[in-house]
Amino acid sequence: MAARYSQYVVSKQRRNRYALILAGGRGTRFWPRSRKASAKQVLNLTGAGPLIRLTVERLLPLVPAGNVLVLTSIELRESVRRLLPEVPAAQILAEPVGRNTAPAIGLGAKILLDRDPQAVMGVFPADHHIGRPAAFRRLVSAAWREAARGRMVLLGIEPRRPDTGYGYIEFPKNSLKPGSLEPAPVVRFREKPDLATARRYLASGKYLWNAGIFFWPAALYLERLRECLPGTYDRIAALPTFGARRFAQALAESFPHCDNISVDYAVLEKTAGVVGFAAGDIGWSDLGSFEAVYELAEKDAAGNACRGELLALDAGGNYADAPGKLVALLGVENLVIVDTADALLVARRGDAQRVGELVKALRGRGLSRLH
Amino acid sequence: MAARYSQYVVSKQRRNRYALILAGGRGTRFWPRSRKASAKQVLNLTGAGPLIRLTVERLLPLVPAGNVLVLTSIELRESVRRLLPEVPAAQILAEPVGRNTAPAIGLGAKILLDRDPQAVMGVFPADHHIGRPAAFRRLVSAAWREAARGRMVLLGIEPRRPDTGYGYIEFPKNSLKPGSLEPAPVVRFREKPDLATARRYLASGKYLWNAGIFFWPAALYLERLRECLPGTYDRIAALPTFGARRFAQALAESFPHCDNISVDYAVLEKTAGVVGFAAGDIGWSDLGSFEAVYELAEKDAAGNACRGELLALDAGGNYADAPGKLVALLGVENLVIVDTADALLVARRGDAQRVGELVKALRGRGLSRLH
Repeated sequence: MAARYSQYVVSKQRRNRYALILAGGRGTRFWPRSRKASAKQVLNLTGAGPLIRLTVERLLPLVPAGNVLVLTSIELRESVRRLLPEVPAAQILAEPVGRNTAPAIGLGAKILLDRDPQAVMGVFPADHHIGRPAAFRRLVSAAWREAARGRMVLLGIEPRRPDTGYGYIEFPKNSLKPGSLEPAPVVRFREKPDLATARRYLASGKYLWNAGIFFWPAALYLERLRECLPGTYDRIAALPTFGARRFAQALAESFPHCDNISVDYAVLEKTAGVVGFAAGDIGWSDLGSFEAVYELAEKDAAGNACRGELLALDAGGNYADAPGKLVALLGVENLVIVDTADALLVARRGDAQRVGELVKALRGRGLSRLH
Repeated sequence: MAARYSQYVVSKQRRNRYALILAGGRGTRFWPRSRKASAKQVLNLTGAGPLIRLTVERLLPLVPAGNVLVLTSIELRESVRRLLPEVPAAQILAEPVGRNTAPAIGLGAKILLDRDPQAVMGVFPADHHIGRPAAFRRLVSAAWREAARGRMVLLGIEPRRPDTGYGYIEFPKNSLKPGSLEPAPVVRFREKPDLATARRYLASGKYLWNAGIFFWPAALYLERLRECLPGTYDRIAALPTFGARRFAQALAESFPHCDNISVDYAVLEKTAGVVGFAAGDIGWSDLGSFEAVYELAEKDAAGNACRGELLALDAGGNYADAPGKLVALLGVENLVIVDTADALLVARRGDAQRVGELVKALRGRGLSRLH
């Protein structure tokens, strides 16, 4: 099953490890805290620090700062550079346009290969929360080692509920051992399921959530990209060497022509021999909405979480984020309250997933200054 | 029944009419909009203007600005003076301490009598809403005329619901003709009732709400005060002439020793021959809470009222006051949302009456800067 690409067996040296941080998203579900120029990944949503800063910090024991590459958007590039002073500024790049993960990882792989033919890259979303970084790093080290043997490797999350918002990855029955440092072979990738299917997946014990965390030799990824998405591969392979004067201009011209598609659909589903690690209890959350932030937050006896000072009377289960302000709650339950200088959100906590709809409505009303 | 005090029959001239505006309250139920230095009566709660400004404006067709006397608190005096530039500044006084309505009206009566022995005073709360000022003025004119005949006169409101928050005034069966310019004799005053009693009052058609709007010759009020509350009368009668250099100092020394009691309890309940007008449809509201402000406000199709820009998605029945800010509501109903620079209130609309409890809690927590 687990085909090896022996030509890609590369160094297991730490110096050949590279982290590609994908930080191109927008995070409209965190409006009004998130804006075009202050997207989710640069926000301090949990109180521990900006998410991208935490993402890099938790990897630095495993990978030198000089081996970190960040792909973000033009609007965010400068703030990301400020948040990651130890990462060389040239390695914090803006994608000319967002083109989903398959081209972004291709671009990263090409840049890393220009520098190190033995590069083994880990791919990490910039905006996830990991409550137990040491446990996470043990798995990441194992995954990196496995990838250095010439494999495509992923880190998946055991489902906690029949969530219909994630892609699922199927494994052979009884093959998943949460937290184990031995990988299991992927059977197939499944798109976001309906609720009945998600329940079946959850009950079977054969599935992991796809967390978008991957490891492979950069050369192997480009090879697979060439086979699966040749047009995009050609655009990326034709770019000048990273660091050359013409690189930025060439990227601006060619990247918009790449396919807008995820690595899961474009590459992984079509690749045999992918293996996965079941994360176990690493305290993972993709912080998909204010509801997820609420779940992680410290709460008072009535279940209220507040960043700043709170005065609650007959009020419970509320999340309030109003920096520098007293929030007074009276007789209200299960609300999300987010205050900023020019916009105030009050939502039912159960509707937190729908906050992005408000941003769409703002666009429709021409209130672009507010999103 | 309706005893006359013929010695107080005074001029029916407009020049002998005086308006005493009682503006000493605090309005903690409008926190965080209301503060010590910006109490309810100086707030623009309805969007039409500061309440005390509207109160005086609606009287100016009936009484010269020079005949307006305002009693307020030390914290509010300067803002009230700014809001009422046509009223002579000396006639906008601060009570050294709040002592409820019986002493306040006594002080007003004494000041007016010093100036005009024939003064007929109308007493008006500073912070009520009157939706139909012309209808209101017709009644007020009639009430002033009746008072000029030497009577104590009040303007009462037909109950719209069995409210337990008001004092009630009883009249003879079938004597009340809403909006009529003929007064009816008061049978007796009733304290705030329980709900069953309030329902009975409402059903009987014999009761009006006490709105705190009164008319009488200033000399008659002082005479009744002398009989009903002699200690307070003595303190007030002993004050120097208003305008004398020693007046302010004497007031500061003697006013705190006056009885802390309302005119209803102290004087009106013990006085025979009081008559009342039933207001009819003058659009009265005492604006007792944000709920009352919501009731008066313009609303969208889903019943949302917002001062400022509103974006509502599956949200209805909400009141939002967040000047200069977009308010986005998602999936929430029947909330009161009030945003200020240092405090944000989110309350169930049905709990709006309880907002004052938050102010008490703030005091308990030593957050005096916020109340």
